Amino acid sequence: MYDIIIIGAGPGGYEMAGRAGHKGQKVLLIEKAHLGGVCLNWGCIPTKTLLNSAKHYVHAKEAPAFGVTTGEVSFDLSKVMAWKQEVIETLRAGIAATMKKNKVEVVKGTAKLLGSGKVDVDGTVYEGTHVVIATGGSPSVPPIPGADQPHVMTSTEILSIEDLPESLVVIGGGVIGIEFASFFSSLGVRVDVIEMLDEIIPFMDRGQAKRFRAALKGKVNFNLGCRVTAIDGRDVKYVDKKDEEKSINAEFVLMSVGRSPNLTGMGFEEAKLDFDRSGIKTDEQMRTNLPNVYAIGDVTGKSQLAHSATRMGEVALNTILGKPDRFRLNAIPWVVYSMPEIAGCGLTEDQAKEAGFEVKSASLPLMMSGRFLAENGKQGPGQVKVVKDAETDVLLGVHMFGAYSSEIIWGVAAMIEAGLRIEEAKKIVFPHPTVGEVIRLAMFQL
Amino acid sequence: MYDIIIIGAGPGGYEMAGRAGHKGQKVLLIEKAHLGGVCLNWGCIPTKTLLNSAKHYVHAKEAPAFGVTTGEVSFDLSKVMAWKQEVIETLRAGIAATMKKNKVEVVKGTAKLLGSGKVDVDGTVYEGTHVVIATGGSPSVPPIPGADQPHVMTSTEILSIEDLPESLVVIGGGVIGIEFASFFSSLGVRVDVIEMLDEIIPFMDRGQAKRFRAALKGKVNFNLGCRVTAIDGRDVKYVDKKDEEKSINAEFVLMSVGRSPNLTGMGFEEAKLDFDRSGIKTDEQMRTNLPNVYAIGDVTGKSQLAHSATRMGEVALNTILGKPDRFRLNAIPWVVYSMPEIAGCGLTEDQAKEAGFEVKSASLPLMMSGRFLAENGKQGPGQVKVVKDAETDVLLGVHMFGAYSSEIIWGVAAMIEAGLRIEEAKKIVFPHPTVGEVIRLAMFQL
Repeated sequence: MYDIIIIGAGPGGYEMAGRAGHKGQKVLLIEKAHLGGVCLNWGCIPTKTLLNSAKHYVHAKEAPAFGVTTGEVSFDLSKVMAWKQEVIETLRAGIAATMKKNKVEVVKGTAKLLGSGKVDVDGTVYEGTHVVIATGGSPSVPPIPGADQPHVMTSTEILSIEDLPESLVVIGGGVIGIEFASFFSSLGVRVDVIEMLDEIIPFMDRGQAKRFRAALKGKVNFNLGCRVTAIDGRDVKYVDKKDEEKSINAEFVLMSVGRSPNLTGMGFEEAKLDFDRSGIKTDEQMRTNLPNVYAIGDVTGKSQLAHSATRMGEVALNTILGKPDRFRLNAIPWVVYSMPEIAGCGLTEDQAKEAGFEVKSASLPLMMSGRFLAENGKQGPGQVKVVKDAETDVLLGVHMFGAYSSEIIWGVAAMIEAGLRIEEAKKIVFPHPTVGEVIRLAMFQL
Repeated sequence: MYDIIIIGAGPGGYEMAGRAGHKGQKVLLIEKAHLGGVCLNWGCIPTKTLLNSAKHYVHAKEAPAFGVTTGEVSFDLSKVMAWKQEVIETLRAGIAATMKKNKVEVVKGTAKLLGSGKVDVDGTVYEGTHVVIATGGSPSVPPIPGADQPHVMTSTEILSIEDLPESLVVIGGGVIGIEFASFFSSLGVRVDVIEMLDEIIPFMDRGQAKRFRAALKGKVNFNLGCRVTAIDGRDVKYVDKKDEEKSINAEFVLMSVGRSPNLTGMGFEEAKLDFDRSGIKTDEQMRTNLPNVYAIGDVTGKSQLAHSATRMGEVALNTILGKPDRFRLNAIPWVVYSMPEIAGCGLTEDQAKEAGFEVKSASLPLMMSGRFLAENGKQGPGQVKVVKDAETDVLLGVHMFGAYSSEIIWGVAAMIEAGLRIEEAKKIVFPHPTVGEVIRLAMFQL
């Protein structure tokens, strides 16, 4: 008899398991593939490892502008892939060690929910006071004719290619599509993005999305408002904005049209769990309709971010332990690890207006930062936008793109959670010279 | 007749001038050298430009570990210096444009304070309701025999050298000394640091200072607890911890034993301004003893940081405009732009204990971050330490070293200013995978 049974060892499940174990709970963690889930094995971590290599490549190429000459720069994909694998295995071993240290029992296999308190794993039934479903999600593959060809891949398969293609078509301009487009294009691969909507990355500030695309001009070709109809051999056929039929020939095709929660084959229906196509329904404490059964992470459809899953796990654990907590979406930062990086936290200007706020915003180029100029040259792309509620002066959101955005943005989460007014936020001192201080400069324009 | 006369166009003076002008104040800004002061012309900005080039050099050399091969990597100091100059001039032009836009009158010359409301600039007397002294500081040069030789330089002169030396002795292991030691050593220069105290960078966490030195092993040789007695030609003579006389031969010597406020030759004594060797005395609103005379920045001796000077200028401006504000030191972040970077905000563990807190702290290696591992390899140096008040659970400080520390630390200032308890801070979500999230992981250990 366990205190907590967790199904799925992604950043929702394994973080919760470790913390629950640390607090003296008897925990069983069930995983059908690898510790770390999609994030560690086929998502955040491998892509960041690849992008780091691409960054080294690009920086070495750009080095002469900063007085450093390098001779010919080349990229060895097999070495990059080997380092990626080493990173994954090191982190997996780290999770295994954390589980052991916190006395979490890990079992490998496919789980089936038998109702509150009971989970079957490949024929063995485990019982626990609480059950947490953290089964994650998988890439969606739309029913496009020709999508079953081997050169048409999702983000999972493309992480294991052995040679760089000459050309790539990315179907879907969301986070995953843009990260891969950035990676491949920076290595000289001809990249076309085909996106159904009128702009890439739906939750990004519209103006910044446009500027970001401009920064990738000549490297990535964006085909917006276009709908793919078929993949005929190497030809990706699509209908453009004007309803004209077009085609792009490419060696590889990446399908990145979104991800869907993993809901089938695990007995959810039989157990009468309340869910629909978009995920398992939960309240703010991550409780499902079944007593003592919780759901966290991608499978809830609330937020498809590793750190959201971790946070949901914390909320579920606090709820189990009787500590008041709730999952809120208002201050969850997000990052796109492209070159340049994109990050945001809180509401964009458009989202704030839609939510009924009287909005005031200020934008500044990152070039206002001496460090940014020194490190990126006079053409370095980047911008920050700060959005506030004009009525109350409360900070609603910060959105940015450019170098270091990924590591800067968390402070905005702190500010939003603290409910700071701009007048107060302006009194917070940023170190000089940093790129981050452009956020502060923008606040002074409000 | 001006509303505000500001003496000195560093980050204290020029930022205040721009903001005051923007608010409709009639402002005169007096500068004897260049707009931007030491920070822009001989400090933060040029050093960061040099360090960026060194970073490109080091990254190109390390690139093979990440699957990127280059030809021979070499460093062209003349090109680096030219880019440094271009950065400086671009930013100077930016400040000039901001002054113009905000109708700030800029006059070049040496100012003399004639008392409240009156300033002489090379013979012309200007009158203003408020006078702000922002005259900054200069490198201290201790009376060491032989310190007047041309190969013995301060940070000012060393920014204009034409060739890399083979070897360098850095006298003084404070921020400036460590930044230059890092810069030169990363380019293959043999570097020795001689520091009088038992540890480098006095306001750094002691344990982290030790780890940081270990990370530079083989590149920089640290001679702690050693007192320089003379510079005899190329030989820097010193007495070590055991009172033994030693000597290091070096092509260049950098004097970086500290900076002193600029207090002489500007009529301060005659005007009966209250100051001593450590700076001009002010209250928390930056008011001096003279009516309507303020002092901000290095010249106050309160904090030798560009962003502190800027913040003091904001406080002075708010005070002039009748808005309540005060300068506080408790949440001023600081950065050392070495490789690896060092940053901190709030109290270190030792400082907190000295201040009488019952302290609890938690440290974690940055290697806990998947991104850090992916980007820095398995030996990448870095650590974060979080310090809290054990009695109230309030966050007192975060200190760290390692990649991205400079851009991460500002969020800690936001947390400390908001007075967050660790229990609340833990609910703030960091994006994954970032280096910054190790702060959050450390908080979970408290």
